[in-house]
Amino acid sequence: MKVSALGEFGLIDLLAKMISGAQDKSAASLQKLLIGIGDDAAAWKAEAGTQLVTTDSLFQDVHFRLETTPWYELGWKSLAANLSDIAAMGGVPEYAVISLAVPPDTEVDGVKALYQGMLDLARRFGVAIVGGDTCRAPLVSLTLTVLGKARDKEGKVLTRSAACPGDKIAVTGALGAAAAGMEMLDNKLKLDAESGRQLKKAFLQPEPRVAEGQTLVGLGVKAAIDISDGLIADLRHICECSRVGARVEADKIPVAPAVRKHFGERALELAAAGGEDYELLFTASGEVMDKVRTKISCPVTIIGEIVAEGPGCVILVDKHGRRIDLSKSGWEHFSA
Amino acid sequence: MKVSALGEFGLIDLLAKMISGAQDKSAASLQKLLIGIGDDAAAWKAEAGTQLVTTDSLFQDVHFRLETTPWYELGWKSLAANLSDIAAMGGVPEYAVISLAVPPDTEVDGVKALYQGMLDLARRFGVAIVGGDTCRAPLVSLTLTVLGKARDKEGKVLTRSAACPGDKIAVTGALGAAAAGMEMLDNKLKLDAESGRQLKKAFLQPEPRVAEGQTLVGLGVKAAIDISDGLIADLRHICECSRVGARVEADKIPVAPAVRKHFGERALELAAAGGEDYELLFTASGEVMDKVRTKISCPVTIIGEIVAEGPGCVILVDKHGRRIDLSKSGWEHFSA
Repeated sequence: MKVSALGEFGLIDLLAKMISGAQDKSAASLQKLLIGIGDDAAAWKAEAGTQLVTTDSLFQDVHFRLETTPWYELGWKSLAANLSDIAAMGGVPEYAVISLAVPPDTEVDGVKALYQGMLDLARRFGVAIVGGDTCRAPLVSLTLTVLGKARDKEGKVLTRSAACPGDKIAVTGALGAAAAGMEMLDNKLKLDAESGRQLKKAFLQPEPRVAEGQTLVGLGVKAAIDISDGLIADLRHICECSRVGARVEADKIPVAPAVRKHFGERALELAAAGGEDYELLFTASGEVMDKVRTKISCPVTIIGEIVAEGPGCVILVDKHGRRIDLSKSGWEHFSA
Repeated sequence: MKVSALGEFGLIDLLAKMISGAQDKSAASLQKLLIGIGDDAAAWKAEAGTQLVTTDSLFQDVHFRLETTPWYELGWKSLAANLSDIAAMGGVPEYAVISLAVPPDTEVDGVKALYQGMLDLARRFGVAIVGGDTCRAPLVSLTLTVLGKARDKEGKVLTRSAACPGDKIAVTGALGAAAAGMEMLDNKLKLDAESGRQLKKAFLQPEPRVAEGQTLVGLGVKAAIDISDGLIADLRHICECSRVGARVEADKIPVAPAVRKHFGERALELAAAGGEDYELLFTASGEVMDKVRTKISCPVTIIGEIVAEGPGCVILVDKHGRRIDLSKSGWEHFSA
């Protein structure tokens, strides 16, 4: 059935029932919920503390193509991108509202799969979907807003503006797999099955580092960002906000094994500038880094250090200390 | 200058500076703000209580046409629609995040005017714009999410599900002017100057009933909705959520004078089904209504009553008690 046959209110009704049935009623966010989907606004009982909000949009043919991103994965990824922003603050995500636009001839089953993807990820982090908006548009687009809170009563969060000269720079996980996954799907590249599976998952179903972000803030890390635009571009955001420079050793960047295996000389570029890895990039003193590396539940790699010189600038060097220029250093909208 | 020349980060930088310069630092929302635009999420110090969230999107050629909706008014209206949802809960709006998509050849001045429209309205209600997302897309679209809180510590809010048989049904202000304004602009109708001004303002710069919503909840009103889809359609939402019926006397519907003057027989239809008036529709006992009518700062008209019969149904009757059928009873997306 097409959404045009169901109508706006029929679609809202179907989605509200689906969401209500799929959510974990024992989650703290749902226990505090007073009014969910179906009123002018959602309402919940909040405790005093530091509140967080982030929003992120995905547009068809700008951020994704329906030919390579199935509905379920589109839902998953759109929520993952927002949860990753909360993770980059070291926060606890709690509530999400979803604004969805689809063409009238969209299959209802597609929209259901989209919500299933969001619901499956939301459930893992105790996030309640509490409202939204649906409308018709010539192309599919999704805007999610996620609300959360600081991990503890003191309200400590990770910011882009807290990096200090002398800090080590580190990243969680491995990089480049999401961008390589997009290339693989766009260009129908044939890789070995396991590499193909890894790259596809990295591109379509990234795992936001929610628990890891909370661990970082608990261990005294102060500066972080999530890697959505690309390692170098996002590190530049930290440098601009903190008015510091950064020096990154190319050899130390953890390139995802499947990217190293299949993308040859381009592997470094994919890892440094590819974007959408949704790993955490953070800075801290050597002492704090030592604690992080023993306590955190994922790989952490130190890739360089924060310097006082060249505020807002990121320098990439090879093992001999020579500067490397990357032709493309991150994703930017509107650029020519 | 086009936004493509400025680039995504240049545009974000320009908007962040503009927002920072325009906001009223003494507003309670800004006093509590810890992290505004420019980090992965915004953060503020919240007190314990009932939190509210609502989201609403406007898409070019679905919700508005750039030919009839100038940039400034588009910004104003997009925020007004969201503030109206908070008003319909009787709440206090506090924070907004904005997701904006525009074609790369959009003039930067247009985007600035859009934000100026939002900022001027935001300032009046002490709302802080704390974050967002910008990207390119073939058509302009805007998704706003507004966060607020209940008016008082008890956390009382207005809901769609609290109407009871015997309640009187009332609306604030006068209806039909927004729909008539759209028709006037779409069809280039020539009206007298004052009527033209009123209808244009109703369509392009609606005034959300934020203070009035708070007054209603304070006086003991429990059920309300804002008129965005149209009087009959929105009253039907209340009836469905409250499992009651409603009987509305057509003669009592407050039709905006300029609509009555220029739209003849169609005036009633515009007032009953036109949508986007952003007035409040609410129900309460006769006793509470008497209090409301003496205390509230805007016109309030009783148009009918809630009945036990026909749950989910709205009946419109003429002065002889005969049923009136409206050919079109509200706005719905996806409908054929």
